[in-house]
Amino acid sequence: MNGADRLCDLLLANDVDVCFANPGTSEMHFVAALDRKPEMRCVLGLFEGVVTGAADGYARMAGKPAATLLHLGPGLGNGLANLHNARRAETPMINIVGDHATYHLQYDAPLTSDIESIARPMSNWVRTIASVDAMDRDTGDAYAAAVSLPGVATLILPADVAWSPAAETPVERTERPLPAAISEELLGTVIDALRSDQRVMIMLSGTALRAEPLRAASAIAAKTKARLMAQTSNARMERGAGRVTIEKLPYRIDLAVETMRDVDVLVLIGAIAPAAFFAYPSKPGVPYRDDCDVIHLASSASDLPALLSRMAHELGATEVPSPSSPGQPTAAPEDGALTGESVCRMVARAIPEGAVICDESISSGASFYGLSHESAPHDYLELTGGAIGVGIPLSLGASLACPDRKVICLQADGSGMYTVQGLWSQARENADVLTIVLANRTYGTLHFEMRNVGVNQFGENASMMLNLDKPDLDWVSLAKGMGVDGGHATTVAEFASLLKTGLARKGPFLIQASI
Amino acid sequence: MNGADRLCDLLLANDVDVCFANPGTSEMHFVAALDRKPEMRCVLGLFEGVVTGAADGYARMAGKPAATLLHLGPGLGNGLANLHNARRAETPMINIVGDHATYHLQYDAPLTSDIESIARPMSNWVRTIASVDAMDRDTGDAYAAAVSLPGVATLILPADVAWSPAAETPVERTERPLPAAISEELLGTVIDALRSDQRVMIMLSGTALRAEPLRAASAIAAKTKARLMAQTSNARMERGAGRVTIEKLPYRIDLAVETMRDVDVLVLIGAIAPAAFFAYPSKPGVPYRDDCDVIHLASSASDLPALLSRMAHELGATEVPSPSSPGQPTAAPEDGALTGESVCRMVARAIPEGAVICDESISSGASFYGLSHESAPHDYLELTGGAIGVGIPLSLGASLACPDRKVICLQADGSGMYTVQGLWSQARENADVLTIVLANRTYGTLHFEMRNVGVNQFGENASMMLNLDKPDLDWVSLAKGMGVDGGHATTVAEFASLLKTGLARKGPFLIQASI
Repeated sequence: MNGADRLCDLLLANDVDVCFANPGTSEMHFVAALDRKPEMRCVLGLFEGVVTGAADGYARMAGKPAATLLHLGPGLGNGLANLHNARRAETPMINIVGDHATYHLQYDAPLTSDIESIARPMSNWVRTIASVDAMDRDTGDAYAAAVSLPGVATLILPADVAWSPAAETPVERTERPLPAAISEELLGTVIDALRSDQRVMIMLSGTALRAEPLRAASAIAAKTKARLMAQTSNARMERGAGRVTIEKLPYRIDLAVETMRDVDVLVLIGAIAPAAFFAYPSKPGVPYRDDCDVIHLASSASDLPALLSRMAHELGATEVPSPSSPGQPTAAPEDGALTGESVCRMVARAIPEGAVICDESISSGASFYGLSHESAPHDYLELTGGAIGVGIPLSLGASLACPDRKVICLQADGSGMYTVQGLWSQARENADVLTIVLANRTYGTLHFEMRNVGVNQFGENASMMLNLDKPDLDWVSLAKGMGVDGGHATTVAEFASLLKTGLARKGPFLIQASI
Repeated sequence: MNGADRLCDLLLANDVDVCFANPGTSEMHFVAALDRKPEMRCVLGLFEGVVTGAADGYARMAGKPAATLLHLGPGLGNGLANLHNARRAETPMINIVGDHATYHLQYDAPLTSDIESIARPMSNWVRTIASVDAMDRDTGDAYAAAVSLPGVATLILPADVAWSPAAETPVERTERPLPAAISEELLGTVIDALRSDQRVMIMLSGTALRAEPLRAASAIAAKTKARLMAQTSNARMERGAGRVTIEKLPYRIDLAVETMRDVDVLVLIGAIAPAAFFAYPSKPGVPYRDDCDVIHLASSASDLPALLSRMAHELGATEVPSPSSPGQPTAAPEDGALTGESVCRMVARAIPEGAVICDESISSGASFYGLSHESAPHDYLELTGGAIGVGIPLSLGASLACPDRKVICLQADGSGMYTVQGLWSQARENADVLTIVLANRTYGTLHFEMRNVGVNQFGENASMMLNLDKPDLDWVSLAKGMGVDGGHATTVAEFASLLKTGLARKGPFLIQASI
């Protein structure tokens, strides 16, 4: 047994049994070790952004971390944007990044770089395994960090640590740390505020957005007149007909300010304090009032469902109001040119029960959330960190975690091109993913933002940087090139027909919805 | 005029007039400023690896830096692998990376990250512009660093620095630093060694590999019996019929050791001391003998052509030996199944005079270099840092720098998928690039390396991680999806026909050569 074998065994002992990978020469001993462990499922991404985005989607749905395998600093660099999203989603993940043999670093061989410096900004925890003797401790610490923070743990594996002989003793499962305790004092303050006539907003994210804790939160709100609000973007929400409907804080700072104007006390449960996504001249940086009391009651390191249940109990909040059902969204017109909204409307009506929606539709799909409150019950996964290119890989990972559930990816075209290679992995794994590309042939958000900085008429340079036309992307050809069937819709009727086809099939399918 | 306008003016004053870009919201003021400067050519990449790889290719051929425009930490992260290659190529480049407004960082908005930490490992120079007052100095320093090191300078532009009012005074061109001086003492030592009976190897890279300095080096070698050697990978070589033929140090450490067994003195001119690309158990880390005297005579910061000319003069080396012409490579068989070698053979015979070859063919194109010594004169650009995914963007950049020259990209399939989005930019810019995908449907290098670690029979996991089949990639569909025409060849005759077509056209074309 060498270090790489032992690392595999340690991962498996902790039930980490999926590894999204794109290895290189420095990881060959680890690949050889994985090859000796058929109980580890290895999934290749043709680019590391696929690898890390898929690990994110997997963990969001599986509720446990996947491993990734990345090649040196450049491989980690390629995976960084989706690690950023995973860190912002508080997704548990264990990155294994190969490095040169420790004694080889002195020669500054061509692929040498400072891996820790690259890893730190997008990881919650980083360590290089100094020797094979540290393997058990370091892997255990990485696992504990990933599941308890929860977040991204990056474990750097030098080649000589991988190939050195390791102990033959049985590996031990790492004790999973207990959830972080809630401060009784803070909780008392929150309960008092909820009983007072202050206007309280409870902002939820993380596991607080699952169906059961949302019912408890809804009962608390009904009892106390507190207002519930979800973060602007969330890793996973359980929603749809029969579940509690919750508003999300608007993305645009002006609207967010308006939404929070009346809030005296902001209680954060699994959420972080909201801030404007970007700064703008003469606009505020945060949506809440200067005199708003912001209480960080619990992070995702705590047991949020238990907390909400306890709060409901202490407040005597037992009644979950029936959802004020807006009913199914009205159907889109039967035909005519497609728009982002008509696509969203048709999808919202067609979601099969138990589906997983991965939403990276950005500007074109802005109406989807509001249209899908009464869709069939589903999970809803979003772009959490603003680093575009998560949709296709996120869908892959979610599908591998939930092979019996249909995954629907609402994908903006500009963002989708970032990790388009993920379609190939969907084909290879026969992932049951329906990808809907909302093709508006622009970076729509940036058109809006250019107007925000006072530019309404674009010249040549702005047009060249903000538009994706000339030439138009042919997504059906792109998908075909990677083994995924698909079709192109420009009208409502065409889209309706392709949607039916895509939902009826098992396996990957792509619809280019030109809007 | 705001900070962003002034930054544009400073770049233009230094003849930096091409900007490869993928901007986001935090860069909108810079985009607006670029829009007011039609003399700056803005080229969009649909992924930042395209942006940085194209800037590398542009500068290698233009001999001056391009700017890049990248969005925050994740955008920089996406560009990191090709920055790594550019740094290893010693390519001058100025990255402009947008950041949040300085006062907004405190809120840890979703896209916040430590940009400097991400930038440092792949940059030779990094600075955040602290205020608009520092704009002239910092931009000048970035330019000076990029051209004099030469290397990658990363300038971080906070949004509020971009939008703040700036001085209206005329901008000044930055004085270009003089080339680094050569140590007279070291030069004396080298001249003495060359006159002695020690066995001297002169290892060249950088501008020493252009046609004229290679003639001087060849004369020196003829006069002194020194042996010339190029680095294993080089940013740019001028080669082909009538030019000096130079061997490259083999990639495989065993062969490199064999090549250097007799070397008593290694003189580095523009090259760095060679090291094994990777460490292997019980193999040496460097190819030269322990007692070899390694002399770092000159880095790329010096004027290498002038140095070689002076050395030739001092040594009285005036005779450039006529090339021992191996003649044109023999033709490939007229038909039959394609192999990597037959593709290389046909391309070597067909290279048009003045072409630029961007070679990321990795294992499949290993024979190309040896087969093309007597091809028509051409420039030869390689993957310098080992971070795969440079070929397609490098070709784009080289073509924009040299629009009247045919660019031929020899592209391995696994590597090509990393930045496949670059084909779209080739179509948009109508870049005259012929991309030849050597499709072997595996990570060929890793098959070799797995055997190196003793694994000859792959199980399920190794096969899943090292093979690109299931499904096979259809490169012609991928290219079509991005507006690039192409064709698929499985036989010598089919390839010969497509090669003729591709070379005759002006504009991008792709051939999938299934080998």
